[in-house]
Amino acid sequence: MPVISLLTDFGTRDGFVGIVQGVILGIAPEVSIVDISHAVPPQQIEAGGLILRRAYRFFPAGTVHMYVVDPGVGTQRRGLAALIGDYFFVGPDNGLLTPILAEAELAGQSIQIVQLTNSHYWRSEVSSTFHGRDIFAPVAAQLALGTSITDLGPALRDPIRIKFAQPRKTSTGWLAHVTSIDTFGNIKTDLRSNDIPGSKALTLEIRNAEVPGLVGTFGERPPGQLIALIDSDDHLEIAEVNGSAAARLGAEVGDEVRVILSE
Amino acid sequence: MPVISLLTDFGTRDGFVGIVQGVILGIAPEVSIVDISHAVPPQQIEAGGLILRRAYRFFPAGTVHMYVVDPGVGTQRRGLAALIGDYFFVGPDNGLLTPILAEAELAGQSIQIVQLTNSHYWRSEVSSTFHGRDIFAPVAAQLALGTSITDLGPALRDPIRIKFAQPRKTSTGWLAHVTSIDTFGNIKTDLRSNDIPGSKALTLEIRNAEVPGLVGTFGERPPGQLIALIDSDDHLEIAEVNGSAAARLGAEVGDEVRVILSE
Amino acid sequence: MPVISLLTDFGTRDGFVGIVQGVILGIAPEVSIVDISHAVPPQQIEAGGLILRRAYRFFPAGTVHMYVVDPGVGTQRRGLAALIGDYFFVGPDNGLLTPILAEAELAGQSIQIVQLTNSHYWRSEVSSTFHGRDIFAPVAAQLALGTSITDLGPALRDPIRIKFAQPRKTSTGWLAHVTSIDTFGNIKTDLRSNDIPGSKALTLEIRNAEVPGLVGTFGERPPGQLIALIDSDDHLEIAEVNGSAAARLGAEVGDEVRVILSE
Repeated sequence: MPVISLLTDFGTRDGFVGIVQGVILGIAPEVSIVDISHAVPPQQIEAGGLILRRAYRFFPAGTVHMYVVDPGVGTQRRGLAALIGDYFFVGPDNGLLTPILAEAELAGQSIQIVQLTNSHYWRSEVSSTFHGRDIFAPVAAQLALGTSITDLGPALRDPIRIKFAQPRKTSTGWLAHVTSIDTFGNIKTDLRSNDIPGSKALTLEIRNAEVPGLVGTFGERPPGQLIALIDSDDHLEIAEVNGSAAARLGAEVGDEVRVILSE
Repeated sequence: MPVISLLTDFGTRDGFVGIVQGVILGIAPEVSIVDISHAVPPQQIEAGGLILRRAYRFFPAGTVHMYVVDPGVGTQRRGLAALIGDYFFVGPDNGLLTPILAEAELAGQSIQIVQLTNSHYWRSEVSSTFHGRDIFAPVAAQLALGTSITDLGPALRDPIRIKFAQPRKTSTGWLAHVTSIDTFGNIKTDLRSNDIPGSKALTLEIRNAEVPGLVGTFGERPPGQLIALIDSDDHLEIAEVNGSAAARLGAEVGDEVRVILSE
Repeated sequence: MPVISLLTDFGTRDGFVGIVQGVILGIAPEVSIVDISHAVPPQQIEAGGLILRRAYRFFPAGTVHMYVVDPGVGTQRRGLAALIGDYFFVGPDNGLLTPILAEAELAGQSIQIVQLTNSHYWRSEVSSTFHGRDIFAPVAAQLALGTSITDLGPALRDPIRIKFAQPRKTSTGWLAHVTSIDTFGNIKTDLRSNDIPGSKALTLEIRNAEVPGLVGTFGERPPGQLIALIDSDDHLEIAEVNGSAAARLGAEVGDEVRVILSE
């Protein structure tokens, strides 16, 4: 019983996610379907890619991660299926997988990508506006059933890559960026823990505030205090103990975060 | 392993949907449960009916579609179970199924409806305000287990029908209506593709804007342009390429859409 | 195939719920996962406890209810697993279970609680900020697989209890409180039906409005009228027939509700 995860910008109001799940269960009735998010901001490929990068590796090996953030639907943009390490991915070829590919390449994992051209595995009628239903859902279900990725189409050797936020080295440390703000108002950045190995003594500057760091966990400081720590995704995070750092600082995605290393 | 789908106006905050799912899994532990929507505007039967009509046929044959948009709970309104073509439906008899019944009748599909009177299939204690939990969930689970629909109660021959938006023929084409606006701001209308067979040359008027049509897909026009096309549900849609047509036009459900055919 | 239910304050936007589900399915691939709510207001233990108390007993016996409303993550707060009557619970030891424990004690149900100390059942790397992923999800999955609760750690005999709203007896009846407001604007209170046995003749005062009571169900009064009734959870509720009582009265959680018994 494999798992199929879904990441879309469909919202959950209109029934589109249910339709996708209905199509999947019609082909692969035994799969477990997990919703990663359907609240990706409309057509924000980068935001969707960050959520999927953070989540995909916590699923069982063999999971099929289907993503549909698809501003290019109805254009010539290609569809793809990928096997990256132990995980399958299905969706439009629009760069959303960029950070996952980068991680896999760094780790020396195997990567296999095909272009979805074999319409035998699609719904018999394909609309021009809902490939999630007509192409990606049936293909994801087929992969879950054990269909070989090479049956879906020819190798795709030049997947689209897009620019994702990257921290930049400076004379005093790093210039990092806010990549997302979670439900609790915690501020996530693009700086990884191994960019600052062993650095406990550093200072962050964000929106004219200074945050001393790092602490190991929330409990080291009293409620209401701003802290910097390494989050559960191994990235630098700015938080307010039992509060919302984002609301307090007025922080937004894209903001610069200056990281000053003490030595 | 049958599927039960859920459509309600419960929202997902208060735990009511979880309760319904718990009741179902207590009776039919092997079912897959799919959420179509729990964000139907409170007690808006028509809005719920449009979402269910668009979604139901993409599920596997034998799926039990349970709907609870139920302003009449605690009155004398009846409960029903229906077998329409290959699909079961369970919910209050309040007209939500009207468009699905109309489609089925047009297609000559078999229709069987019973009134839910056999309390043997309900929870032993039935509240006056939560029939979703106490009647509809157990009945949906029983249908998924294979209980015959005729065991649930006597035939119901006069299901409630309500008025749904319908386009009207005019001297120059059609007077259609906005039926819903999706997450992306795409404007859905009640005009079906086969109301305008072969019509590529038409003009839409909505909220003092003119939209030329039809295009085949988003990709035929540049981002930012208003377009008219046939959507993935075979209805006329007004969209902005990579934008929100509804926000741009200030469109709302119920708005008139004048369709002028060129010949 | 056991059931695991989830109650969190994670929201559904960021992918954290999907991560938890991925971890669970990696350990216990056959479980059914049900979302009770992920919209508990951030770190509001009491609000989460009320939702879980209302929902847990409608699930099949043996269900593992996992809850993560966890302002104390990263402090010395303990984690726990409990077997209360027929249901398992897993989460932080922060008082969220208080109303469930109180009900179980009143009903003379068996209660067994252990502290989560046996890291053999956790993910191998435990972050300091996401115990939902690293401790509670794997433990919940293990309980679903049949691991004995006593293997998870030593008995925990003094679980944290917190103050929950309780009605108070007055000379003329009760002083009750608004505990929650549901999606429909129905106002829930802390007064139970058996606090007012046989009382049909009573009057409620809330926010300077008087509501006569009780009616048996919505259908006894015309749309637009304020009513008081016993809700599907056996508590006193104030509602507007086919409307929002909360919007009409400006009611908020914590408001006092004076219940005046006629004799």
